[in-house]
Amino acid sequence: MTITQAVSPGTLTRPGRRFTLSAQTLDSPVTPNPVFREWFAEQRRTNRYEVRRIPFRDLVGWRFSDSTGNLVHDSGRFFSVEGLQVRAEWEGHAASWSQPIINQPEIGILGIVVKEFDGVLHCLMQAKMEPGNLETVQLSPTVQATRSNYTGVHKGARVNYIEYFAPPRTGSRVLFDSLQSEQGSWFLRKRNRNMVVEALGPVPAHEDFVWLTLGQIHQLLRESNVVNMDARTVLSLIPSYADEGPPLHSMEHLLNRLTEIKAHRELVQTSMPLAAVQNWRRTEDAIAHDSGHHFTVIAASVAAANREVTRWTQPLLAPAEQGLSAFLVRRIGGVPHLLAHARSEAGVLDVAELGPTVQCQPGRALTLPLPRRPRYLDLVLRADPGTLLYDTVQSEEGGRFHHAGNRYVLMEVGGEFPVDVPGDFLWVTAGQLSDLLRHSNYLNIEARTLLSALRAAWARGGAYAR
Amino acid sequence: MTITQAVSPGTLTRPGRRFTLSAQTLDSPVTPNPVFREWFAEQRRTNRYEVRRIPFRDLVGWRFSDSTGNLVHDSGRFFSVEGLQVRAEWEGHAASWSQPIINQPEIGILGIVVKEFDGVLHCLMQAKMEPGNLETVQLSPTVQATRSNYTGVHKGARVNYIEYFAPPRTGSRVLFDSLQSEQGSWFLRKRNRNMVVEALGPVPAHEDFVWLTLGQIHQLLRESNVVNMDARTVLSLIPSYADEGPPLHSMEHLLNRLTEIKAHRELVQTSMPLAAVQNWRRTEDAIAHDSGHHFTVIAASVAAANREVTRWTQPLLAPAEQGLSAFLVRRIGGVPHLLAHARSEAGVLDVAELGPTVQCQPGRALTLPLPRRPRYLDLVLRADPGTLLYDTVQSEEGGRFHHAGNRYVLMEVGGEFPVDVPGDFLWVTAGQLSDLLRHSNYLNIEARTLLSALRAAWARGGAYAR
Repeated sequence: MTITQAVSPGTLTRPGRRFTLSAQTLDSPVTPNPVFREWFAEQRRTNRYEVRRIPFRDLVGWRFSDSTGNLVHDSGRFFSVEGLQVRAEWEGHAASWSQPIINQPEIGILGIVVKEFDGVLHCLMQAKMEPGNLETVQLSPTVQATRSNYTGVHKGARVNYIEYFAPPRTGSRVLFDSLQSEQGSWFLRKRNRNMVVEALGPVPAHEDFVWLTLGQIHQLLRESNVVNMDARTVLSLIPSYADEGPPLHSMEHLLNRLTEIKAHRELVQTSMPLAAVQNWRRTEDAIAHDSGHHFTVIAASVAAANREVTRWTQPLLAPAEQGLSAFLVRRIGGVPHLLAHARSEAGVLDVAELGPTVQCQPGRALTLPLPRRPRYLDLVLRADPGTLLYDTVQSEEGGRFHHAGNRYVLMEVGGEFPVDVPGDFLWVTAGQLSDLLRHSNYLNIEARTLLSALRAAWARGGAYAR
Repeated sequence: MTITQAVSPGTLTRPGRRFTLSAQTLDSPVTPNPVFREWFAEQRRTNRYEVRRIPFRDLVGWRFSDSTGNLVHDSGRFFSVEGLQVRAEWEGHAASWSQPIINQPEIGILGIVVKEFDGVLHCLMQAKMEPGNLETVQLSPTVQATRSNYTGVHKGARVNYIEYFAPPRTGSRVLFDSLQSEQGSWFLRKRNRNMVVEALGPVPAHEDFVWLTLGQIHQLLRESNVVNMDARTVLSLIPSYADEGPPLHSMEHLLNRLTEIKAHRELVQTSMPLAAVQNWRRTEDAIAHDSGHHFTVIAASVAAANREVTRWTQPLLAPAEQGLSAFLVRRIGGVPHLLAHARSEAGVLDVAELGPTVQCQPGRALTLPLPRRPRYLDLVLRADPGTLLYDTVQSEEGGRFHHAGNRYVLMEVGGEFPVDVPGDFLWVTAGQLSDLLRHSNYLNIEARTLLSALRAAWARGGAYAR
């Protein structure tokens, strides 16, 4: 908690000033904190729903393809569970494996509407329940919709506020907009469109939605399982606009290093029939790895009150254990830097993306021989709690994942930690990560959650800075 | 030829000044133009080689896989010819087809070494022959090597100057470095690493190599089949550094538009066995489309003097006809803009890339009913020669393609041409395209050739500007 940095207002651009003001506003007359608490508790109370594991044969509208064993939807839409063969090879690393993976080629929209009330930007957040969530209901972006959702293939209710995001988009202007990846170990080349738009006129109210300042959301981000993954990734697009000081590496150098890593690595991803995946077994109600590690694919029956369709069955991916995602944070020349790790996950679109310093399932990782364990894992597991700027469990997408909790950690390290790091690690500032988020395929989703968490951590005590 | 723009030296950064000076230097004592001519003619004369079409069964080291019909190398390396199923759907466009496609997951290096002589930057260019070239020998980058080449899988000679590009790279510093795509209609998600590096010390000479200024290369770019594709794409990374004036759209707006296009389009690419591709037939010596359009896959035997391996056989992809790639160029608010088209080619990595205004095989395109013809094709085909800033045939990669000539055109349009264009077209300046080339997956290879051509066209008469 010692790494903070003052905002110097003179250097702020106009959008910067507006988002900074919103982040500095920790309570709001639009939705006072106690009112939010009451409303949110009520949402969680009334939006109960039942999720039951079922055998695969009880899935409605889903089946295993005869020819491939892939788990597919009858419509040919939504997503499917397929097989993927991966061959990865680079210095000190050679691996080849096959695994089940979710293939969802559609690009959906995750978007937040913002609007000024009394001169302060507020974000329109939705109380949304999803079948796999660790808590029944979490705060989601204004819109969180697959293309099937918002074009009506789902046959559910229309998506509220979609007109602020989908063309012709007459009622809003776009502030941030980029395609961003999701879990590369579980999804094949999946991306969603992440958007922040500003409403140009009055925005109709809806009972499941609430206006919160960035400052209010940052406080909620310090709690477990309140702000959902889709909200966290959209929030990560909003830079802090603070003047952070000179970075260790120029952007050109970072791009050069990343290009070198991508060119150097051999990552061959080949789709294969799910039935042909090795070391995975399908039973009546699960597809699991022989070791019991990684994840299982299961089927669930869901009965709910206010989702688009009120009763359905679907496959879910259930991680075998809670994950760990941690950034080491160190001042270099007085400027806070994050230690990013260039990760090549099974389903990554473009060879490698920057992820947290450590990202793994620690239970499994600790079964590995020492040289194969994730670097810096022990450091994080043995951390003095006083060095943790952030240490909170958050859920991944409850629409695809069942109880996928990750422990998110920001750990401060001091001058004793070397600036010289192995070649697949890079020191980057939060501002540089923000710049990269204007584009696609640079930061993985765990890194983006931690970038949002960093802003929340640095906002502690009311001083918004990075 | 009326669109030119002065360089204002005061605004140039130091690298800008150096590249601008090199571009303004149209002849050089290091390699005077007549000396280059003589040397190049000699290279073409002495580096003769014989390319013969052969039946597939005479390929050595290549075979059709029993299970898939894919054309593969015995080593499992280099590249293979596979099948691809494509489903594309968006407004006014819905198509589904399968086709053969080259899969080459390795990322190679295309790189130019630059070095100052008497204060002027020169590029080290190689006279290189490739089996499919329209002319026996063309000017290539200093290094043009697949990973198999430079790591020795090829069992050929070592790659000259590779140490300036591959780590640890002690003798050079990197100026430009990014992964860039190649022909999306013929390659599955293929990219190469494009690099420009500056030598830090003396560079040993080699008889197949020559030092040329940017100005000298620009003059050669105005001739057909002298500067090869790999050189053109690397050269496209070097911005012109001229002060071009305010663009019509901000970069944020361009990124937003591109994101919208990518999110809106449904492009599902599924690898399939080559044997299962529909409407394509394999004979003894060709895989061809029933219509005779598109391309054929053929086999060739090559006997050559100075390539890495002096005699070999390999598959080549032979386009059915000469292609056409054309940018419309229009002044908007006095500033030259190119009309880019967001293209989703079969093998594209990230849904869509910016390509030229028109890019097609015109013979086939003219057989299509009018509504399905490429927009602006007629305009380009009917162009008054006086409006053509550039109109030159260039070859695509002769290592994979057989006699793949494209007519590259830059056509100036006047105030009568509307600034309002359909949603998948975007007005961009050359400077904006240069900015995008710091990243991957934004510009296709035909657009990059035309960006290099634009600089060559604007350099006419000695005034280097964009």
